[in-house]
This record gives sequence, structure tokens and C-alpha cells, in this order.
Amino acid sequence: MKVKVCIINIGNELLLGQTVNTNLSWIGKQLAELGLPVSRSITIQDEPDAIKSTLAEEWKTNDIVFVTGGLGPTDDDLTKACIAEFFGKNLEFREEVWQSVQFLFNRRNLKTPDVNRSQAMVPQDFEALLNKVGTAPGLYYKENGKSLFALPGVPVEMKHLYTDYIKDILAESYTPEPVFIRVLHTWNITESALAEKLKGLKPPQDMQLAWLPQTGRVDLRIYGTNESSVTDFMGRIYKIAQDVVWGVDDEKPQDVLQRLMIERNLTLSVAESCTGGLVQELITGIPGSSKYFAGGIIAYSNGIKTDLLNVKQETLDQFGAVSIETAREMAFGIRQKTNSTISISTTGIAGPDGGTPEKPVGTVCFAISDEKQTISRILVFNGDRKSIRWKAAEYVILLLIEHVRRKV
Amino acid sequence: MKVKVCIINIGNELLLGQTVNTNLSWIGKQLAELGLPVSRSITIQDEPDAIKSTLAEEWKTNDIVFVTGGLGPTDDDLTKACIAEFFGKNLEFREEVWQSVQFLFNRRNLKTPDVNRSQAMVPQDFEALLNKVGTAPGLYYKENGKSLFALPGVPVEMKHLYTDYIKDILAESYTPEPVFIRVLHTWNITESALAEKLKGLKPPQDMQLAWLPQTGRVDLRIYGTNESSVTDFMGRIYKIAQDVVWGVDDEKPQDVLQRLMIERNLTLSVAESCTGGLVQELITGIPGSSKYFAGGIIAYSNGIKTDLLNVKQETLDQFGAVSIETAREMAFGIRQKTNSTISISTTGIAGPDGGTPEKPVGTVCFAISDEKQTISRILVFNGDRKSIRWKAAEYVILLLIEHVRRKV
Repeated sequence: MKVKVCIINIGNELLLGQTVNTNLSWIGKQLAELGLPVSRSITIQDEPDAIKSTLAEEWKTNDIVFVTGGLGPTDDDLTKACIAEFFGKNLEFREEVWQSVQFLFNRRNLKTPDVNRSQAMVPQDFEALLNKVGTAPGLYYKENGKSLFALPGVPVEMKHLYTDYIKDILAESYTPEPVFIRVLHTWNITESALAEKLKGLKPPQDMQLAWLPQTGRVDLRIYGTNESSVTDFMGRIYKIAQDVVWGVDDEKPQDVLQRLMIERNLTLSVAESCTGGLVQELITGIPGSSKYFAGGIIAYSNGIKTDLLNVKQETLDQFGAVSIETAREMAFGIRQKTNSTISISTTGIAGPDGGTPEKPVGTVCFAISDEKQTISRILVFNGDRKSIRWKAAEYVILLLIEHVRRKV
Repeated sequence: MKVKVCIINIGNELLLGQTVNTNLSWIGKQLAELGLPVSRSITIQDEPDAIKSTLAEEWKTNDIVFVTGGLGPTDDDLTKACIAEFFGKNLEFREEVWQSVQFLFNRRNLKTPDVNRSQAMVPQDFEALLNKVGTAPGLYYKENGKSLFALPGVPVEMKHLYTDYIKDILAESYTPEPVFIRVLHTWNITESALAEKLKGLKPPQDMQLAWLPQTGRVDLRIYGTNESSVTDFMGRIYKIAQDVVWGVDDEKPQDVLQRLMIERNLTLSVAESCTGGLVQELITGIPGSSKYFAGGIIAYSNGIKTDLLNVKQETLDQFGAVSIETAREMAFGIRQKTNSTISISTTGIAGPDGGTPEKPVGTVCFAISDEKQTISRILVFNGDRKSIRWKAAEYVILLLIEHVRRKV
């Protein structure tokens, strides 16, 4: 029988858009890895009626219910009282919780404010999970094989209580199905063209294949209960789609690039116009990138293109700053200036202004230059300024990966 | 009567923790600003039963229901069929949607794959909201004063459809309570020091003051139903805290910088080491930045610092690449190379490796150079590589804003 898991997140700030709910994705990932994937999640306001009615509904239909948020010591923290009322339990004072709260203040040479005494009140028959990084204890209740966990909304406290208590409780109380998740990352193909390519390939019954469109590319997620059949199925997809697969699992394009460049003892420089530093920001975001990345130039104005990258004025006059010809000279120029073995360049129109009928907003030119050749591309991306820049930056990194792989 | 709004997010990836649900916070923020705050939100799996039962439940109890996700052309996209079935509508082919899908492919010189014909199928009596950046149209249905909107899960498409169609539909169909939100952005002060500064200043009864710690700085959000009292209260805060306020409302540091630089007819160049392009990426993310931003150099290796920025080898030998002295020469060098009126530089240790007892991970040096002077700073930021780089990039932009304001 499949264990049903629900997460209830309480907090106006989540619904007003002031805070992104990273607690759901964090708990969701942990539970999926444990073999207890979340069935559904509900976000509600800090209001007693909403808390109690949602709790009633979800406790009826699920085996495990998580509640996060509203456990602080101030007036707008209502969760604990609502839970006690729903289960018909009185709140009782727990000395060990009070000791644990005082310890946190003593450690910082502070007197414990009286308002924190409320943190030591725990519903009868509930276990208090002592919080080592904050004042609100976690709460755990078990009844007829069902479990309720209430956790503070502050991510660092929630993660501590899950990791140090709840994970073990769940592993002992339930016999989760093992779960295996693999991801294939593709590029240079639309979701529909990839679907066309993989037509006829259906996942076996105990496995799910999910299509996850990212900005400008598609990921395929395989989810199943048997490790070797998940890997087999991934292999079957890879065989058909290998020309558009650039990486697996948690890899980002810049991770794959870094591994390849260091393996092959290559160094890189970058000349960017429309991407304005994003390509180099992605590259240098990875620790150890200085092992292959030398540096580069953001040539936003034409003056910098000519003065620092040696792009010819006549090239700019004849073909324009957004042209294959300018991209090629930019890539060649930065490689010469920095003595790197390979270089890449971007120049384009990120918008919202600057488009023309021949070169609409989203037009971006790319070049790769090495000691043997210069190759170039021109593409038109859809979207707003931010997504055009993002797609262009990822595209040039993926193009470079393909180029380096071909070099062998 | 209060309008009740529910958001249903569909997608296993949200529950498995592979994707953080940024759609909820984005829509939540838009709707709060419109005066239609979200009452509750539910995240469910891509399963017909879950989709239909959740829809049934929420359509009964809410006035406005948003559904996101599951509108793509592949087999795991089930939302449209479930919605049609729930409302008892047949799917019908819409020529204008098909034209719009084909336009997206034609623009990229691609043949439209057949599988996309399904995107042109729309439930009877539903309005199709034509999607200019992706193949899935938005869907809009109205019945007895209730509204249903179904949107693709890809953020850029969802945002486009909300902004270009749904916002107006909602403003015409409902009379939201007016809501006024103002934000003051501060920097160079901790949350507790700011709290101390503002001690005794309580918001009036009909207003909320929220403290929103950002990475490296704090925002204050004022939320109320009366425009002039919200603005009055903001003015009272500003009076006390003006020395640490750099902007208001939706402004980002780079927006404020761009306005100031253009007003004062100044041009900027940037030399980055540890921030690796992030400063220039933030600056060029704003449309119109080419009016003042010339370009810059990412000097990741020491060779680039000496060869392209004219940093002296003896400066690197004596003080190290991460030093006030190197930062000053970098700023001076990029200003000379680009003939800009002002320049900034960053050099530091983003980690996780490279720290020493004298210069721990998080140490970053900054300089600003103009025709009159070069000023510099050294700071140590907490956090991981990503947050150190982020804090450093925002810091140098805010430091430049302060410098330009003082120049007057």
C-alpha cells in the first residue's frame, strides 16, 4: 500500500509572494530520496480556521502530514494552538524544552526573554523534537500508524529537525519503496521534436518519464523503483537521443565544460556583448574554474570592440555590431589578447529596443575560435531580455562543449 | 465581499523537489498588488484524478482559480484534457492558435512538428490567450462570475500571459480592495541595528510593516489600504533611516545607478576578478544600460590583470592579487583603457578554497576611480561562494551610487 504524504505550509508571506517556498522543494527532495514521495502540498494563511480545516481534511486522507510555519513565540504564531485543539489535547509545560531554549540564550550571554516560555508548552501525548538552532521545538504525534510533524518555517531550523530526528523516525515507522531518479539534459531540440524522436519509446509500467522544459532546453527525468531498470531505460533514451544530450543528473553546462577543458588541458577566454557578463558569471560560479578560465572582455560599446578586441571599424560599418563577422573578429581578438587556446563570443539584440526587420530582438551571433579555425552561428531566441540573455549564454557554453568533444 | 483566489500548481517536479515553485510567489505578488491576495495554494501531481478532484473542490469554494503546468505537447501534459472533462466541454481546433504556434517555428526557420497541432485544441467556450514566447496558449473560462485561468508552468510564458492578458481581465471583472505596498531598501546596516534605529516606530492599525532580510541587506515593506497613510508612514521611516536607504519599491541597485549616471552624463567601465562578470551582468540586465556603460574586463588570471589592465607585477608580488593596491590599479587601468569617466573594480576570495588566516574566504577589495581620485574598501563577507559573489557585486554598485550622489 502506497504511503500518502502531504505537506502543509503556513504563512501569509508565501501567498503574498514575499518569500519563495524553498521548504517544500527541500522536504520534497528528502522524502523522494527516502522513497516516500509527497502526494500533495497546500499553502495557507496564518488563520485558525484555515489551519484547522486544512488539518482535518489532510489528516483524514494521508498517512504522513508535515506542517511548517507559525511555531514562533509571537502573537501571529498560531499553529501549535490549532494543532492541540484539533487533536483535543491540552498544552503542557515541558522542562526539557525550557532548558533547551535557555541554553540557546545562555550561550550568547543573554537572559531568556519571558515570551519564550510559550515555546516549552507542548500538546499532551506529542513528542517535542529539541531544536538546537532556534527556540521552537519540532512536534511529533503518532496515532493509528499515521504521523504528524510540525516544524518551524525558518529553513535552517526545519532542515536540522528533519535531518536529526524525522528521517530516522520515518525510516523506522514505514517501509518506503526504494526510489531511483536519473535525469538526461538535452539541448538544440524543441520539446516537440524530442517527443517525435522518442515516439514509440514508452517507460515500463513501474517507471515514469517526465518532460521538464527549462528556459531554452528540455530535461528528461526517469523515476522508478528498480535501479538497474531505471539505468537501462536511461540507456535506451540516450542511444536514440545522444546527439542532443549534454549531461546527466545534477550537472550544469558549466560543470561539464569545466571537466572537459581541464581534462584536455585547454584554456578559455570570452568576449561578450549582449550577454553582458553572464557567460563568464556562469563559468566562474563553479569552484576551480580558474584552472582553465583566463578572463575576458565585456565589449558593450563599439569603441571597446575596436579598441580592446581589434574588431575592424569596416566590419562594424559593413555588417553591423550584431553579425557573424563581428562575432568572429571578437572571438579571434580575445584569444589573441589573452593567449588562451580557445575563445568564444556573443553579440546580439537582447531587447526590448534595437530590433529591425532583418535582425529582430532575440537575434544573437556566436563564434568559437581556436588555433585551427573559427566557427560561428546566428540564432533568434524568443522571450524577454532576461530569457534571451540566459538562453544565449547557455547556448554558447553548450556549443563549446560540443566543439571540444568533437576535437577529441 | 472578499474575492477568494486559489492557485493550483501541477507538476511532480515541484513535489519531488527538483523545481522550486517560483510561479506561486510571482503570481502571489502580482495578485496582492492588484488587491486580490491569494487565499490558498495547492500543489499536486500530474495525475488525472488528482487534477480533477482538486479542480472540483477549489472551483466550488473560490472566485478565481489559477492552474499552472501540464499544458505542453507531450504525453505527461494532462491539464487541458482534465479541465475540458471537468467542465464538460469538447476540445475544438482553433485556427488562430495554430497560426500563432507556426509563427514561432517559422521565425526560427523550423518546420512545425505535428505533435504541436494539439496545442491548437481548446475547450469549447474557453478563450485562448495567444502565447508569444511558447507553444502552449493560456486558457480563460468565465461562468457565474467565477474565472478559471490555465497557464503553462514555464515562468517566462506564465509571466507573459499574466502581464499581457490576465491582469486586465481581472481588473475589469472584479473590484479589488485597493492595496498599497511601498518598499524602502536599506544597506550597510544589520537587521538588528536597523530595528534599534526604528525602535518605538509602530505601524498604525490598518498597516503592516514587514522586515525582509535580503542577501546582504534589509528591505522594509509597508502594506496598507490607504495610500496617503502608507506614504506618510514610509516618510516617517525614511526620515529616521535615510542614511542607509538607497532606493524604493521595485528599484534594484543597478536601476538607481543607471538613472544617476545618465542624469549626470557619466560613463562607466568595470574590472572584475572574484565577481567574474556578475557586476556587469547586473548592470547590463537593465534596458538602456548602453547609454552609460562602456564595457569592462574580467581579469580572472594574474596574466590578464597585468597584460590587459596594466596592474604592475610588483604590486601583485608585494600585496597579492587580493589587495586594496591591486583593486586600485585595476580600476585605474580599466578607466584608462576605455576612456570612461568612472570605473569600479573587485578582487577577492569567493571560496570555497583560497583563504588564508590574514585573508579568509569572503575577503573582497573594491576600488572606484574617477578623474579626481581613487577610493577603495576591503570587506569580509559571510556565506558560500554564490552569496559572497552576490553580496560583493551589489556592494560595489551601492558604493558607486553613494560616490556619485556625493559628487554633486
